[in-house]
Amino acid sequence: MTVQSPLSASTSSRGLAIGIDIGGTKVAAGVVDEQGVVLAEQRRRTHSSDARAVEATIVDLVRELGSVHPISSVGIGAAGWMDLSGGTVLFSPHLAWRNEPLRENLERLLERPVMLTNDADAAAWAEWKFGSARGESRLVCVTLGTGIGGAMVMDGRVERGRFGVAGEFGHQVIMPGGHRCECGNRGCWEQYASGNALGREARELARANSPVAQEILRAVDGEVDAITGAVVTELARAGDAASIELIEDVGSWLGLGLANLAAALDPGMFVVGGGLCEAGDLLLEPTRRAFSRNLTGRGFRPAASIKLAQLGPAAGLIGAADLSRSPLTNGARQS
Amino acid sequence: MTVQSPLSASTSSRGLAIGIDIGGTKVAAGVVDEQGVVLAEQRRRTHSSDARAVEATIVDLVRELGSVHPISSVGIGAAGWMDLSGGTVLFSPHLAWRNEPLRENLERLLERPVMLTNDADAAAWAEWKFGSARGESRLVCVTLGTGIGGAMVMDGRVERGRFGVAGEFGHQVIMPGGHRCECGNRGCWEQYASGNALGREARELARANSPVAQEILRAVDGEVDAITGAVVTELARAGDAASIELIEDVGSWLGLGLANLAAALDPGMFVVGGGLCEAGDLLLEPTRRAFSRNLTGRGFRPAASIKLAQLGPAAGLIGAADLSRSPLTNGARQS
Repeated sequence: MTVQSPLSASTSSRGLAIGIDIGGTKVAAGVVDEQGVVLAEQRRRTHSSDARAVEATIVDLVRELGSVHPISSVGIGAAGWMDLSGGTVLFSPHLAWRNEPLRENLERLLERPVMLTNDADAAAWAEWKFGSARGESRLVCVTLGTGIGGAMVMDGRVERGRFGVAGEFGHQVIMPGGHRCECGNRGCWEQYASGNALGREARELARANSPVAQEILRAVDGEVDAITGAVVTELARAGDAASIELIEDVGSWLGLGLANLAAALDPGMFVVGGGLCEAGDLLLEPTRRAFSRNLTGRGFRPAASIKLAQLGPAAGLIGAADLSRSPLTNGARQS
Repeated sequence: MTVQSPLSASTSSRGLAIGIDIGGTKVAAGVVDEQGVVLAEQRRRTHSSDARAVEATIVDLVRELGSVHPISSVGIGAAGWMDLSGGTVLFSPHLAWRNEPLRENLERLLERPVMLTNDADAAAWAEWKFGSARGESRLVCVTLGTGIGGAMVMDGRVERGRFGVAGEFGHQVIMPGGHRCECGNRGCWEQYASGNALGREARELARANSPVAQEILRAVDGEVDAITGAVVTELARAGDAASIELIEDVGSWLGLGLANLAAALDPGMFVVGGGLCEAGDLLLEPTRRAFSRNLTGRGFRPAASIKLAQLGPAAGLIGAADLSRSPLTNGARQS
């Protein structure tokens, strides 16, 4: 760690912040203004399992972007659990850090305030402040990708729970004894309502050599393992009946899980984001049907609306940047 | 409604409030001081389906208790959904009121501020302020009776959701296609982890003429329909092996559902109340085992504790009384 930051601390400027989104194989960084607009963006391929390489990449990106824009703070979003103060990574499926004072290291290198945040929390914050959910007092977000990222914004604050690990909606067991989940359980919601679930179901259909799977098999030249949620989504949009059905099945599970969340949390709005949203109404219509059918007390209560996310893949870095400006809204605590 | 209240308004006294707990067949009222102590209590048998009779009973009880104690406000807890302002019953399974300005009527009759509140919210508030969960910043309560009552206290406020109907944890679908629930769905958690579920399972065992159900059948003189959760609980405490197993099964479902709630909400503590808690550790030990086994991220995160409620059946009226003193903590809103 000999990378030296040549940045001059520009603490007087409160306007611009950098948001960083750490994925499994890449790091994206963007300069974000107070209206949530991304003024500049950079990406680097970096394997997240190499903690030092990721740190160096972050420093590099902040240096580059900071040489053109006056940056007051840096927000870093990643899959995983951060402690409530936003200083330490408790656990992350991809990141190599464990219980390390990551923020301290980075603040020394970057000479600016740094805030760590869960990527789903960051995306939800962005949708609440700048996207689909402006003004909603009880927001629940789900991001459908590999799994289900989840987050809540309540009364204008990210609700992170007692230990900072709330929002793991994807791991509600919705089918005891069902599909195995990476978390160690069986039957988690994200095994039924995610991009991965869609891909798995399509591969199973294809392996069974079902005649209805012909279009899907053709799209991957018969290579069953190449069938992913994205492939199915594209085929569905092109009108393939089997792919549309597979997405409907995922939507039914999605709606059921949202009804469970509505029973517990009674939000005013659900925002659904992530790659699977490319399916648009092919996903949302069966989702809304299943939600309405399974909502407890239906007919006797107002129901939450279900909307698509507005900000796309940049939501995470926009939210991370914005939360770094006002850490308390991240549910960060002093204790 | 010609009942006239002879009460003198004693708005100068802030110390004592009356809490009222409306059940299916009785109304309980208690004078509660600022430390949550019940100074006097009265009960009346009244069928909750007769709205006017319940109103008259409430007026009667407040008059009687108020003639001895200076009462500043009245809190009324009942199963069902109240609007966020605490003025109107949106829906209640037992109460005959629907979208009626119940508070307005009662305030005129009682000449004191009145607050309507969900009974589970009231009990959770009491446990947070005076019982098992004092000082807990993220509390989830479940009350195991006919079904599962649920409530959250977050940062010292009852969290009631966007429309006032949060906390219906019992209606998370935990077994799609499973047992029919009164709410219209199948597979709701309360069909697996409640006093009613315990009774149903025991009756099924008895009807199958299982030799292990001999003690249970003896306790009800062979009348299968007389087997209830309370009967099984009593037998379990007396050492009947089959009854102990039945409670273990309920505990396993309870622990699984709590793990689901922990994934979503990350509370610091669960408080478990209601009739089924008479089983004590016979219930709590299997609950804790199932919770630990199913908690997502176990080993990488702090886990909520699981405690029994402290205040017993009076929790509802204690909480309702206290919330009537400071309505805003009830999540009541002006809009």
